[in-house]
Amino acid sequence: MIDSEVVMFEVAELGRKVTKSEFKDALPQLRAELTEVQRRLRDSGVAVLVIVEGVEGVGRGEVVNRLNGWLDTRGTETHAFWDVSSEEQSHPRYWRYWKSLPARGKIGLFFGGWYSEPLLRGCNGEWDEVRIAAAASRIRDLERMLALENVLIVKFWFHLQRTQQKRRLKELRDDPASRWSRTGRDGSVLDYHDFLRTGERVIRETDTALAPWYLIESGDSRYRDLTVGRTLYQTIRERLDLGCPDCESETLSHAPSLPDAADGRLTILDHVPLHKQVDKADYTKRLAKSQRRLRALTWKAYKSGRASVLVFEGWDAAGKGGTIRRLTAGIDARLYRVVPVAAPSDEELAHHYLWRFWRHVPAAGRMTIFDRSWYGRLLVERVEGLAEANQWRRAYHEINKFEQQLVEHGILVHKFWLHISEQEQLNRFLARKDIAYKQHKLTDEDWRNREKRSYYEAAVNEMVFRTSTEQAPWTLVAAEDKRFGRLAVIDTLCDRLEELL
Amino acid sequence: MIDSEVVMFEVAELGRKVTKSEFKDALPQLRAELTEVQRRLRDSGVAVLVIVEGVEGVGRGEVVNRLNGWLDTRGTETHAFWDVSSEEQSHPRYWRYWKSLPARGKIGLFFGGWYSEPLLRGCNGEWDEVRIAAAASRIRDLERMLALENVLIVKFWFHLQRTQQKRRLKELRDDPASRWSRTGRDGSVLDYHDFLRTGERVIRETDTALAPWYLIESGDSRYRDLTVGRTLYQTIRERLDLGCPDCESETLSHAPSLPDAADGRLTILDHVPLHKQVDKADYTKRLAKSQRRLRALTWKAYKSGRASVLVFEGWDAAGKGGTIRRLTAGIDARLYRVVPVAAPSDEELAHHYLWRFWRHVPAAGRMTIFDRSWYGRLLVERVEGLAEANQWRRAYHEINKFEQQLVEHGILVHKFWLHISEQEQLNRFLARKDIAYKQHKLTDEDWRNREKRSYYEAAVNEMVFRTSTEQAPWTLVAAEDKRFGRLAVIDTLCDRLEELL
Repeated sequence: MIDSEVVMFEVAELGRKVTKSEFKDALPQLRAELTEVQRRLRDSGVAVLVIVEGVEGVGRGEVVNRLNGWLDTRGTETHAFWDVSSEEQSHPRYWRYWKSLPARGKIGLFFGGWYSEPLLRGCNGEWDEVRIAAAASRIRDLERMLALENVLIVKFWFHLQRTQQKRRLKELRDDPASRWSRTGRDGSVLDYHDFLRTGERVIRETDTALAPWYLIESGDSRYRDLTVGRTLYQTIRERLDLGCPDCESETLSHAPSLPDAADGRLTILDHVPLHKQVDKADYTKRLAKSQRRLRALTWKAYKSGRASVLVFEGWDAAGKGGTIRRLTAGIDARLYRVVPVAAPSDEELAHHYLWRFWRHVPAAGRMTIFDRSWYGRLLVERVEGLAEANQWRRAYHEINKFEQQLVEHGILVHKFWLHISEQEQLNRFLARKDIAYKQHKLTDEDWRNREKRSYYEAAVNEMVFRTSTEQAPWTLVAAEDKRFGRLAVIDTLCDRLEELL
Repeated sequence: MIDSEVVMFEVAELGRKVTKSEFKDALPQLRAELTEVQRRLRDSGVAVLVIVEGVEGVGRGEVVNRLNGWLDTRGTETHAFWDVSSEEQSHPRYWRYWKSLPARGKIGLFFGGWYSEPLLRGCNGEWDEVRIAAAASRIRDLERMLALENVLIVKFWFHLQRTQQKRRLKELRDDPASRWSRTGRDGSVLDYHDFLRTGERVIRETDTALAPWYLIESGDSRYRDLTVGRTLYQTIRERLDLGCPDCESETLSHAPSLPDAADGRLTILDHVPLHKQVDKADYTKRLAKSQRRLRALTWKAYKSGRASVLVFEGWDAAGKGGTIRRLTAGIDARLYRVVPVAAPSDEELAHHYLWRFWRHVPAAGRMTIFDRSWYGRLLVERVEGLAEANQWRRAYHEINKFEQQLVEHGILVHKFWLHISEQEQLNRFLARKDIAYKQHKLTDEDWRNREKRSYYEAAVNEMVFRTSTEQAPWTLVAAEDKRFGRLAVIDTLCDRLEELL
């Protein structure tokens, strides 16, 4: 799954589709729901700000036109912010956005809004990381301020794969109606990968509990439009259901349910190539070779003072322990430390949930391997309701900031999700029952967790989108074949170490 | 009141004192209160983090020793973070702070903590504004994260005037017990004004509703220690009174009541030199001259594209209208616009409270004069309870960020508080009753406002501390004599324009 592209967006490269007839069947209900929620919105004291962003050629205009067709236009306003007028030029940058903010009871649709400038200038290299971070910090402040004063902010990021984009841009060039699009207007096309890299950074910095991003897969326009319509309906309805116009919207849902269409229910886990295998003889040879490579690289990292933090998460029985053992077999014992993360101790409970992990951050040149980690908050604590909704929603941003600090100190951060199918998990559970020395590894809880698989899948999908950053990526490991999974992990780590040293 | 020093800190240059006997009388109660609140804290699920910062020689060590004497030491820990150990050096910057965070039920006292580095590096010029802002943004995130997870953060900034500091530093040099102080250790003394300027910036960026700064006047050690003890007691008690260990502390009080000692009740308004006067002949001459100067400067500002935003606040009948008329008489009518701020319209109410002011931000070269302003939120709305506590507490930071955007766009921002005594206000009210054409200016509300004078005084005092920044300062105008006040305003504005053009 390691890829030159930015992993975050792979969550929107799953080939999700809605057929024509599914779309037609779903439409009447969605339109009725939108009309109903817009009617309720009118007297609610809440304003809705919808921001649409994404790669060029993704059809932002089409979506907004579609939404305008579905919504009561007396309650909606669209703002494009294309040309900066001379009047706008002579005012502070944000003046034009403030002027255009929707009033209570209204829905405002912003093309890009305050995201356009950091994205464009970041993409074309005018702004460096520090400048982008400063702009993002301002955006966080602004959005927080608005959200705390009755503005529901819904941010959509539309994503297309490179090949799809090329096709779309060609169509657009040939279509006279597209002359107003960003691409059509100035003729230049932003570099796809530069744009994604900047986008990843901007999303990471501005994806907060109060104003989260929704990543919309846009290869299929029916899936795209239906998902946007439903997400908008759900977020508005949930905000209105809070009942209090002045209450903080920090309690809002992050994860709108997926469209009912079969293809729409895919998650990124469905794309892990579980069929991959390595035969035993090949494995033994390759493992020894990879471990030798790892040994050399970890000594080199030690000498150059480069520390590493590895995170292992995955399904029960996916083989985390076995994988970690093969990995550490390739590292001098003085250089690494495995931290198994179980239920927190009393001392740990008395502190912030990140405190116990900060303690184990490795010193220069060393490696800490977390067998389960701070992602517990976004997985088990979320699914089991052990963390409040506003706690785990905040955690995406908190965790990104935590890992960013490690990365800025020069620490390599890599996160592995060990994936196996439901059937394979069952086989392993049953096998454990039969092997005496493995019986203790199987608990009632494991069986209960199995029943919640679909919830965990949704949580993993969202976790990968919101926390797989360029600097601290997730690798989804195909661990159906244990041998393949172990090699994949060791080789991925070696590649990253080699790249950084 | 215009001064080469940073206005923010003038709030802590009032000469507040507590006598020896007042101190002795107050101590038993304070100690009993602290003991009681610390006992309640133990099982509350709340941790308290106290940060002490301020100019050198201000006695931070003395205060912390005093607190340790008053508190039950089994529940307190002090962390100095002096020398960075080699172990700490090999970890990310914040590792050592995380390690030292207090557990629930405990009080942690940090000397400087995460503020030391930005203050020192900002002061000695190693870090520029962008770097300081980035560090402040990280601090805001961290403090917010902790505050939302049961950490009550109490930040004290101790202030001394330059002359007091000089005396203190001399004493310290002569005292062998001070060898461990920041000054004593490396021998170098930070430049006083550089330190204040950096401090002002850091405070402005990190003074949030969730983790506000408390500015402590420290010229008198008894006043200093008593105020710290009482503030600590009050903030902890209020946090515990919220009852819910997990609830957001955004509802905390910002403004602990002042010490009961007579001298402790001073506010910055008590230092406005109300006795100042200008006689009529002199006034007529000087007014004409100042207006000519203003005319030239405003044309120059127009030509160079430099816009201005002026804010006028003050007591009822302090003469805002008359002052603004004299000011605008010196400006070409095409260049300025007066925006009287009354109760918001329906359209304005339907938007964020800053929206109506954003609309009137001047274009390049123009001037907008706000007769009352966004500070209504921190004055009338706060005192009259028209804004919720968490709304006006957030507003300090929101307003600073708003004004910062104007300043960054090159706009001159200056804020005037027109001050008169209670007696003078009464005289003017009574005179109005007798002058037919002024009768409409006197309402029942004016009389009601008079009764709340002390609340307004406290609100103004806090407003000046939290929003008088180097770039957008407050000037407290002695308007007891109308002529003096008008000239002071025009001359202050001219000075600033001249400085900037």
